[in-house]
Amino acid sequence: MIAITLPDGSVKQFKAGSTAMDVAKSISEGLARNVISAAFNKETVETSTPLTTDGSLILYTWSNDEGKQAFWHSSAHVLAQALEEIYPGIKLSIGPAIEKGFYYDVDFGEISFTEKDLAAVEKKMIEIARGKHEFSIRSSTKAEALDFYKKQGNEYKVELIENLEDGTITFCDHDSFTDLCRGGHIPNTGIIKAVKLTSIAGAYWRGDENNKQLTRIYGITFPKQKELTEYLALLEEAKKRDHRKLGKELQLYTFSQKVGQGLPLWLPKGAALRERLENFLKKAQKKAGYEMVITPHIGSKELYVTSGHYEKYGADSFQVIKTPNDGEEFMLKPMNCPHHCEIYKDSPWSYKDLPKRFAEFGTVYRYEQSGELHGLTRVRGFTQDDAHIFCTPDQLDAEFKKVIDLVLYVFGSLGFENFTTQVSIRDLSKPEKYIGDVNTWEKAEAAILSAVKDKGLDYIVETGEAAFYGPKLDFMVKDALGRSWQLGTIQVDYQLPERFELTYKGSDNELHQPVMIHRAPFGSMERFIAILLEHTGGNFPLWLMPEQVAILSLSEKYEKYAQKVLNLLENHEIRALVDNRNETIGKKIREAEMNKIPYMLILGEQEEKDGTISVRKHSEGDIGSMTVDDFGNMISEAIKNEIKEFNVD
Amino acid sequence: MIAITLPDGSVKQFKAGSTAMDVAKSISEGLARNVISAAFNKETVETSTPLTTDGSLILYTWSNDEGKQAFWHSSAHVLAQALEEIYPGIKLSIGPAIEKGFYYDVDFGEISFTEKDLAAVEKKMIEIARGKHEFSIRSSTKAEALDFYKKQGNEYKVELIENLEDGTITFCDHDSFTDLCRGGHIPNTGIIKAVKLTSIAGAYWRGDENNKQLTRIYGITFPKQKELTEYLALLEEAKKRDHRKLGKELQLYTFSQKVGQGLPLWLPKGAALRERLENFLKKAQKKAGYEMVITPHIGSKELYVTSGHYEKYGADSFQVIKTPNDGEEFMLKPMNCPHHCEIYKDSPWSYKDLPKRFAEFGTVYRYEQSGELHGLTRVRGFTQDDAHIFCTPDQLDAEFKKVIDLVLYVFGSLGFENFTTQVSIRDLSKPEKYIGDVNTWEKAEAAILSAVKDKGLDYIVETGEAAFYGPKLDFMVKDALGRSWQLGTIQVDYQLPERFELTYKGSDNELHQPVMIHRAPFGSMERFIAILLEHTGGNFPLWLMPEQVAILSLSEKYEKYAQKVLNLLENHEIRALVDNRNETIGKKIREAEMNKIPYMLILGEQEEKDGTISVRKHSEGDIGSMTVDDFGNMISEAIKNEIKEFNVD
Repeated sequence: MIAITLPDGSVKQFKAGSTAMDVAKSISEGLARNVISAAFNKETVETSTPLTTDGSLILYTWSNDEGKQAFWHSSAHVLAQALEEIYPGIKLSIGPAIEKGFYYDVDFGEISFTEKDLAAVEKKMIEIARGKHEFSIRSSTKAEALDFYKKQGNEYKVELIENLEDGTITFCDHDSFTDLCRGGHIPNTGIIKAVKLTSIAGAYWRGDENNKQLTRIYGITFPKQKELTEYLALLEEAKKRDHRKLGKELQLYTFSQKVGQGLPLWLPKGAALRERLENFLKKAQKKAGYEMVITPHIGSKELYVTSGHYEKYGADSFQVIKTPNDGEEFMLKPMNCPHHCEIYKDSPWSYKDLPKRFAEFGTVYRYEQSGELHGLTRVRGFTQDDAHIFCTPDQLDAEFKKVIDLVLYVFGSLGFENFTTQVSIRDLSKPEKYIGDVNTWEKAEAAILSAVKDKGLDYIVETGEAAFYGPKLDFMVKDALGRSWQLGTIQVDYQLPERFELTYKGSDNELHQPVMIHRAPFGSMERFIAILLEHTGGNFPLWLMPEQVAILSLSEKYEKYAQKVLNLLENHEIRALVDNRNETIGKKIREAEMNKIPYMLILGEQEEKDGTISVRKHSEGDIGSMTVDDFGNMISEAIKNEIKEFNVD
Repeated sequence: MIAITLPDGSVKQFKAGSTAMDVAKSISEGLARNVISAAFNKETVETSTPLTTDGSLILYTWSNDEGKQAFWHSSAHVLAQALEEIYPGIKLSIGPAIEKGFYYDVDFGEISFTEKDLAAVEKKMIEIARGKHEFSIRSSTKAEALDFYKKQGNEYKVELIENLEDGTITFCDHDSFTDLCRGGHIPNTGIIKAVKLTSIAGAYWRGDENNKQLTRIYGITFPKQKELTEYLALLEEAKKRDHRKLGKELQLYTFSQKVGQGLPLWLPKGAALRERLENFLKKAQKKAGYEMVITPHIGSKELYVTSGHYEKYGADSFQVIKTPNDGEEFMLKPMNCPHHCEIYKDSPWSYKDLPKRFAEFGTVYRYEQSGELHGLTRVRGFTQDDAHIFCTPDQLDAEFKKVIDLVLYVFGSLGFENFTTQVSIRDLSKPEKYIGDVNTWEKAEAAILSAVKDKGLDYIVETGEAAFYGPKLDFMVKDALGRSWQLGTIQVDYQLPERFELTYKGSDNELHQPVMIHRAPFGSMERFIAILLEHTGGNFPLWLMPEQVAILSLSEKYEKYAQKVLNLLENHEIRALVDNRNETIGKKIREAEMNKIPYMLILGEQEEKDGTISVRKHSEGDIGSMTVDDFGNMISEAIKNEIKEFNVD
């Protein structure tokens, strides 16, 4: 008999050789139907793997990420089988599960394979799935494994096996198909009910452009047809809301090959939008006792040697900037903190002066491989809404909580009501990843956990996700499509104050070391605006909209009245444009709708005579006639409801 | 006989061999007394040089820059003579006139020479001056000249002579003293009436730190004692107003060796000051139809190859930034224009869309040798209040004039009432210095001259001072101490639109090339604030002051009332601080005066009871008791008078 410990802490006895599925059945028939993968003593096992020792067992279903991963990993096998059956002689390379679905990289040789061929493969996959074939793992010697693929002439699998150690190599079989595989499958192919192969792309073998380009087939599968349908609808909506598409349509930003990839150029409407966001945060920060500073975008190499960034980044970064003066070297700043430490260091401080809160919209530069760049979410230059708080250890808890309040205020004002937090702490088994001593790490981690609990935040703890200089609290918001994005971050840092030898004079007249908090509610202006675009589909909160109102005249005759309305709106600080072209009102409305302008004011003879306007709301239609002042007041009221004053306790 | 043409165009006949002094005497005794140097056919000559051909002659007096240069150049000879007489055996190297005075670099060998020794040298100089010794120029062969200094063991003069061509070498003799010299002296030493040796410094021979360090002695001389007295008073005042001193006292900015020389760190008060200036200009620019954009601080090397900056800067600049990707190279941006060209290029434009006016407070980086750095006026990173106007050739004149209006508005709002302008055009004899074709240069130069005349500006034309890409109009303001500073600039550019292949669709439906105007009313925020500090001595216009009001309580008892006053002032958008320390009111007032806070509000029992405040004005004293609201209205009114709305015609 073996003792199996379940996640709820209960321990049950089973015959040695029982499987995860046996355990599931012993709990309930329903669970057995739904269990699709398992972990034994934290190692992935098949649900059919005989368990021979005592241990802890977790059973995963479709509702767990681990369950989905097993589902999609298994689906990749089915895809590979379908491809081999339709295109005998192709060479398979690798086919992992990814965040949403799976892919397989295939060398089609002389065969031409295009998007048009995907439907037939999907059909074959469904056919195979319906066979309810069970997956089974089988060990192989390295020699056998090499022999198997050498016979097939598959140099990819041969290369993979050559890099594996003998004794660790396994194959997975199902139906007539065999693949080199580490394991982690669903019980049988039958639970794959819906299949969609989403796209194909070129992919170099091992990501190296000197290697052969293979064909990557992306797909996704579900246990229910309905889920696939929903997923495809969401995908369609996400495509419409893609910030790269919207950013272009709304003329917010652009990229230029000549300026450089990943270096956004903010067009007037985008720059104005950014400024509104920055001013909004500046105002709240001022109330919260922050002081703005401005620092340069470069620093001497020595600055980053001191901070530890030089050691941490290095060959993967933008390289040093030399000058005509031998030995003088600068670097683009990847973070603002070293500069803020030097500002702190410029004056002597007493405990009575602390906390000092230095804030800056600081543009930083970090090198990303061109393949990893993506619109505004992954760039090489971005502006952090950065601040560094220097406080006494006694003040840390209170300051940390105040920062949480500010972050929550920002999210609330921008319509991100749905979020979770992640406390990122060290991986104790990898001390070489972090700088600084164990004691200070422990204190910092404890401070974050205390603040998070105290504020009643929904949080998870992630081991190994801390920054190299300290633990952190990250905010993950869910957007309107249910996707999770990492936004704001708050980090405790005992390391930089030590590296920069920062001090303050305590009430005991001795010099002490302050604690530092790094924080950025938006994270990066670029990334935040991208996410806001996708979250709102470009229908920003009214106070943020580049143009809040379009004044549409029924004919060019009313130009003067249109201008008068514009001036009146400006008195209300409302951003408006006049469309007085010689076009039909229908066309004007359609264009304003397309540009997502929240309100359209239509005016003609009647309106001019009455001194009124006819108001249409974006995507809602006519909301009646009123005076410009009434309209102005309505807008001011709407904005006041969107964005409250930040209150400091 | 020879014919001498004078600056007024008149031609007079003189005997061959007559001197400039003879010509002066022939005009008037008064002129002869005042003439101190001369140029014949645009070449500097001594006033005693015999003129042997026809030619044009200019006579210079102390009121000309050329006269001052001869005066100070001659004074350097007198300094050298005095030094040799007091310290025989020293080695002279070079001793030029500079903008204000002159210096001499001397190798004192084993002799220790300090500031304390200057007085004795001054005394000796006055003694020599009183001898009324005439300066006379004498030619020498290279061999003779080398022989002369080799015998003295003066390796510096030997090195200088070795680099001269035989036949061009002259010495200047006066009294018992001889120096290698190209000429340009005053008639005799007697007109040097006042001498001040201002400082000594170390200076490497030929500015190369691998060479020996010499002692540089700075001095200045005047034809009247009164002028020296005035100069020294001005110097004293300038020292008090030195922006480096004031910047530190007022806690506006700092530098850090670790961040890097010439890279300012803006402290909270300085950053807030800068933001106020920027917001002021933003507001005016918005009215004038500018649109803000934001661009990165780096660009690919290719961008600057296209713009011509790469060719122009190069080895003297910050070097390229390499990346992990072979062959990929970026540069710190030395100017914002290439980025703005790429923004323009992002969209197709019709003539109806122009002018497009893209503005950005863009931080740029230009390498300066560390010896040339000076506070905020000469830095390696600075923020331009930059804008680029893209217009049709037809719009150029009007746009140029609008920019002039904006520049004048900025100067007026900041108390710079006294300024001249300089139109910088090509040096036609050095076409290699400029990019672009002759035709477009001519058009651009004509456009500037037309605008300047039309606006009735006080201007001079400087040949050879144009930027490499186009002619420009620079604004030179005179500060409160009468010193001239180059501030705003407006530049016409036909070159970048061509290099970037910018176009717009004309009314003829054909593609045309727009004209570009570069402009920056402040020039650079750093430099502007430095000059404003020195102009105002830190007493900024009220609207700009970091703290406008200090609330000084008579004792800690009135803390609550002080806080109430503070809140009331905040309603008036007045920036105030509370000084509620347990200190005497005298000390509190002295500190507020030192911090140049414009208004002090004193409050005690009486004020609390009456709901009033006692108002003191900086450096003026008590101006009476009033309610906070009355005070608030007074301040608002004062600010309204300082800074008018910008009106666009």
